[in-house]
Amino acid sequence: MPMRRLPLLLACLLALPTLQAAEPPKPLTSKEILDASPDADWRTLDPANTLYMDVPGGRVVIELAPAFAPEHVANIRTLAHEGFWNGLAIYRSHDNFVVQFGDADADDTAKAKSLGTAKTKLPAEFARKSAGLEFTRLPDVDGWAPQVGFVDGFPAARDPKAGEAWLTHCYGALGAGRGGPPDSSNGSELYVVTGQSPRQLDRNITLVGRVVKGMELLSATPRGPEPMGFYEKAEERTPITAVRLASDVPENERVPLQVLRTDSKTFAAATEARRNRRDDWYVRTAGHIDLCNVPLPVREAKR
Amino acid sequence: MPMRRLPLLLACLLALPTLQAAEPPKPLTSKEILDASPDADWRTLDPANTLYMDVPGGRVVIELAPAFAPEHVANIRTLAHEGFWNGLAIYRSHDNFVVQFGDADADDTAKAKSLGTAKTKLPAEFARKSAGLEFTRLPDVDGWAPQVGFVDGFPAARDPKAGEAWLTHCYGALGAGRGGPPDSSNGSELYVVTGQSPRQLDRNITLVGRVVKGMELLSATPRGPEPMGFYEKAEERTPITAVRLASDVPENERVPLQVLRTDSKTFAAATEARRNRRDDWYVRTAGHIDLCNVPLPVREAKR
Repeated sequence: MPMRRLPLLLACLLALPTLQAAEPPKPLTSKEILDASPDADWRTLDPANTLYMDVPGGRVVIELAPAFAPEHVANIRTLAHEGFWNGLAIYRSHDNFVVQFGDADADDTAKAKSLGTAKTKLPAEFARKSAGLEFTRLPDVDGWAPQVGFVDGFPAARDPKAGEAWLTHCYGALGAGRGGPPDSSNGSELYVVTGQSPRQLDRNITLVGRVVKGMELLSATPRGPEPMGFYEKAEERTPITAVRLASDVPENERVPLQVLRTDSKTFAAATEARRNRRDDWYVRTAGHIDLCNVPLPVREAKR
Repeated sequence: MPMRRLPLLLACLLALPTLQAAEPPKPLTSKEILDASPDADWRTLDPANTLYMDVPGGRVVIELAPAFAPEHVANIRTLAHEGFWNGLAIYRSHDNFVVQFGDADADDTAKAKSLGTAKTKLPAEFARKSAGLEFTRLPDVDGWAPQVGFVDGFPAARDPKAGEAWLTHCYGALGAGRGGPPDSSNGSELYVVTGQSPRQLDRNITLVGRVVKGMELLSATPRGPEPMGFYEKAEERTPITAVRLASDVPENERVPLQVLRTDSKTFAAATEARRNRRDDWYVRTAGHIDLCNVPLPVREAKR
């Protein structure tokens, strides 16, 4: 297939002598676009909205999404501030789906860890009004929602008819596990998507944030047995040293991360460079990108 | 949201007294559909077309796709038959993308392992004529291809205008790594998709099969450093004990696997049960499923 383009290209070059003299500049790759981005296109994470999850392999950095799940995020902040997850574990790793962490004994009232001053009951926060949200829409078709795009760094979807918006289950999404009743999550048992985006969960469970850095510490967690991935033995679990709010960590111990603004020209150009690849390796460009294939660039802030 | 349905449901129940006397049976879940499937809906893997990849954690079972990549599959069969991968390693694990295995020294002519009687050069096999393929189409929209569906257990796409079909990069897809030139793969360096389906690779590289069982042995491989995931030290690699054709393994040591026929009524019903979830946990059903979210059921054959 790629060979068929060659005669046409040669014909064009011969027909247009100006092109021989001054070839148009090669379009930039997404990496080149990011490298050339102005500092104003980057947003520094708010420490009051950032979780550090320390596991034996290193630190996972999570950004919370109070704009979508205010009640859950408030509870998670309380739980982190009071050290709820410290000494608990990743107790589930379901291949091509999620890891889940929190209190493995949560269902056993005799053994369950106290939630401290956090609430035990919260409303479901599956979607919110779209009014008031700056939604950067992707032009690409999506089978799961009328519109998809980004809200301040979070992959999201929108239904203009219903006037609603919601976070989507892309790789790295952080959600609040629940039982049967829609309002049975309280933010203490959390899951992170480690597999093919399970978008069927969108608007069926409360998403509360996303992993910004350190996904490889969660995604490579050995899988538990089928069908659900819960480990059979406690020693198979990955211990959690601590989950802390960045604002509770001394400033010199924080990770000074910046995320690319998803409403910036840089983000739009980097996404377009992936939608229509210009590097030589590709013989065919897709002309499309799925919401969950769009990378969300992160960098260390200059100190 | 789900509450809004209640008045309508009540109205229907009151208007239709027969429904009160005999409630329609609850639709089956995909698991119930599979459990009730006739044996004829399952296909036993052809040992001549099956690879056993043995790593320290266990066995990965791979089905090759000669209908799509006949030249690559023939070469891979030769390489496996002659023990090419035995003692080699998984030398790359790129988070949310692929693991790759083969000869880490392939680019070093002094150290590279001989390909034996296998060919060193093959044509690119990115797509094939769609004529002659039984293509079970999904009704669901897809952004990457005009049509998507399944060919004999493999997720695939089709372009009726071009008269072409090709395998798609879903979780577990097995591909033949290549360098710059499209025809630079020979099947000795293979990758398996372990992350969000990188469909932009479709028709840009040759897919040769898929992992049928044992993905968790590949997907939990510790990640190598960014940006590409190649390990820096040889001891970080996962050793490969052996990759053998099932037909080269004594019959009593084979794994007698069956895969659900993707052109069966059972497969269509199980997929529909996932497209429109009927279990009580879901408050909202998507009415859609992405190609790469459709599970491909596998079971052990009765001996």
